[in-house]
Amino acid sequence: MEKILIIGGNAAGLTAASRARRLDPRLNITVLEKSPYISYSTCGIPYYFAGMTTADELVSYTPESFERERGIKVHNHTCVNEIVPSRKRVFATRTDTGEHAEFSYERLLIATGVKPKLPDIPGTDLRNVFTIIDLQDAIRIKEARQPQVLPGIDRDMAQIIEYEVQRFGVRLSVGSRVLALVGSDGHVTGVKAASGLGIEPADMVLLDTGVVPNVDLAREAGIQTGVTGAISVNSHMETNVPGIFAAGNCAETYCSIRQRPILHYIGTVAAKQGRIAGENIAARRTKFLGAIGTTVLKVFDLAVARTGLSSEQAAADSIPVVSARIEALDRAAYYPTARKIWVKLIANRESRRLVGAQVVGYGEASKRIDVAATAITAGMRVDDLAQVDLAYSPPYGNLWDPLLVAAQAVLRKMSMW
Amino acid sequence: MEKILIIGGNAAGLTAASRARRLDPRLNITVLEKSPYISYSTCGIPYYFAGMTTADELVSYTPESFERERGIKVHNHTCVNEIVPSRKRVFATRTDTGEHAEFSYERLLIATGVKPKLPDIPGTDLRNVFTIIDLQDAIRIKEARQPQVLPGIDRDMAQIIEYEVQRFGVRLSVGSRVLALVGSDGHVTGVKAASGLGIEPADMVLLDTGVVPNVDLAREAGIQTGVTGAISVNSHMETNVPGIFAAGNCAETYCSIRQRPILHYIGTVAAKQGRIAGENIAARRTKFLGAIGTTVLKVFDLAVARTGLSSEQAAADSIPVVSARIEALDRAAYYPTARKIWVKLIANRESRRLVGAQVVGYGEASKRIDVAATAITAGMRVDDLAQVDLAYSPPYGNLWDPLLVAAQAVLRKMSMW
Repeated sequence: MEKILIIGGNAAGLTAASRARRLDPRLNITVLEKSPYISYSTCGIPYYFAGMTTADELVSYTPESFERERGIKVHNHTCVNEIVPSRKRVFATRTDTGEHAEFSYERLLIATGVKPKLPDIPGTDLRNVFTIIDLQDAIRIKEARQPQVLPGIDRDMAQIIEYEVQRFGVRLSVGSRVLALVGSDGHVTGVKAASGLGIEPADMVLLDTGVVPNVDLAREAGIQTGVTGAISVNSHMETNVPGIFAAGNCAETYCSIRQRPILHYIGTVAAKQGRIAGENIAARRTKFLGAIGTTVLKVFDLAVARTGLSSEQAAADSIPVVSARIEALDRAAYYPTARKIWVKLIANRESRRLVGAQVVGYGEASKRIDVAATAITAGMRVDDLAQVDLAYSPPYGNLWDPLLVAAQAVLRKMSMW
Repeated sequence: MEKILIIGGNAAGLTAASRARRLDPRLNITVLEKSPYISYSTCGIPYYFAGMTTADELVSYTPESFERERGIKVHNHTCVNEIVPSRKRVFATRTDTGEHAEFSYERLLIATGVKPKLPDIPGTDLRNVFTIIDLQDAIRIKEARQPQVLPGIDRDMAQIIEYEVQRFGVRLSVGSRVLALVGSDGHVTGVKAASGLGIEPADMVLLDTGVVPNVDLAREAGIQTGVTGAISVNSHMETNVPGIFAAGNCAETYCSIRQRPILHYIGTVAAKQGRIAGENIAARRTKFLGAIGTTVLKVFDLAVARTGLSSEQAAADSIPVVSARIEALDRAAYYPTARKIWVKLIANRESRRLVGAQVVGYGEASKRIDVAATAITAGMRVDDLAQVDLAYSPPYGNLWDPLLVAAQAVLRKMSMW
């Protein structure tokens, strides 16, 4: 009964564990997770802050239910300190009790995710200054918040109202470098910015200045990282050390457009890598086909979606492109719910293949970005995209889908249409 | 100044006219349309019946505004009786005045759409028995309807209520063959069905028993029709008679999956064919790449979308397939607007390429069908579809999009995953 050890208990790690278990029930699989929580939706944290869901609802499995249903042992509160490939051993500390623990493996998956990149300014250690990487951070931040607006109604309802109120009240200061966070009695009280006229008062500060792959353990174990700073893996999610795999946000992702390793910090890619890692851990030689940076987010009512390369990314890789942006309605103009969207398509000027797309708007944007992502993945030329037989009915789309109109606009720019 | 004549003033005909005009401003283009209306959304007619839009809002251009903005002469109320290719002449009658008219051409586009296929039963000529093909039919039907429910509120509001009320009150009788429509004083009063216990009373009957391509004119002019009954065209939308083109619902469509001509009665395909016809009329040798039968419709709250081949269609063409159906939520389970959808994917068992997809549900279905349509068009294998980097954010989708889950289910059935 082969021993499989997995460091990291979220998208990549647990998907790999489940997949390997399904493919080979004889494997002895153990997951080590430093936080109290496993198997939760990181992407759901904003909706937890907004009171639209609870922390419990974000969690799919507890360590106990995961072990019971999947037959996979999970040690939470377990922080790994060292991997020793020569002895196939992992050394850890229990964060709740301080005990030391040691685990052996025949195959090891590293799925340690990311850690916060802190700005090099004073004050980041003050109380109520937070970073946010995981559910534990989210719960700490939520607990530090002021009670609520409208004390006459329940807190979980008031938070939805706060969320709506913020739509019209958020102040945005771009290009303003923060010099320091200032405090009193160890508690943050303000922010000093280069452009400001003094200190901007603040009861709470959330630092979101990027993340870096969490690769210290891997590096110390002699596992190679790439130029991106993340762990180098092949298409089977194998590292340079035999029997050691890496997946998720700590591992590099292959970009099928640029044909080189890149970084993607996103759950969809982590889960896909985890699935492939799990299959290969179970000796099924499947390959990860790479990712192209497809994301969508909700900024108040506005959907912001993108896939593939931006014009800037294409320029950085010396890929010659033609792009066009159009404005359109997301469904028939006379249909009551028609809303505005903007579509930008970017195509390789030489191969004529689609290499990137961006859709922003109040209407259905993720629909269009997924079509573009599929076209990019398939290596589709913009000439062909312009004629794809897309669905139309007034409540759902347009006779000429905005994507087709944008493809025609790119073709016009290519002076061939 | 070459003379271009176009018979038919809706999706295919006007798209062709506009496209040819844009590509070659010197062309002398004339459109002949038998009804009073041109350039309207046929797909919007249900929303016109529901009081959600007006007939005027469905019309993009009047003959006058189209002529003024595009420099293309439109004769509406003009019914073509005969095409004489040997003399390059078209003979017509003005339906409003009864006058005869004659038009010459150097290139001719036939875009005559469809006509109703009537059931062979008595009573179809009674008053208040309608067929519906165009906006004129729709206006006649709407004018024949009973005033409204709730006379205390405005008619346009009451119709929206009627629409909602019907959600819960529509009776459906499938497999019941209608033997006759019966009437009194020439007005329809009931329906006699083979399965019924007598005559089902009816104040109004809408016959929707299919359409056939409107090809009488073309056939009499010696233009070939195919086994489908529609006009045969090549990828440039040319008929067998030099200088005569056909586009839209009267013309055959090339199916890129089955690699043979088929029929599609849908505006999206008509518009694409019209665009290609217009380009070729203007001597730009572009090609129509075909269509795959992508449609979406709204049945009360339920979205019903399909693309490519159904299992039955694949069997009829002896294409060996594997299919799988899954049930899923269209976005994160904890997100308040998450709704259920069912996804079925059909793949060729030998080539492993996706050949068909069906999505039905209360959530976002047309998004998934468009992704499938793009994958089918690109010849994507279901193995590759299972890994496409689709967008995810809790308000818009799932970590594993239902399409990816369905692709995995197909792969499991193929015993390879």
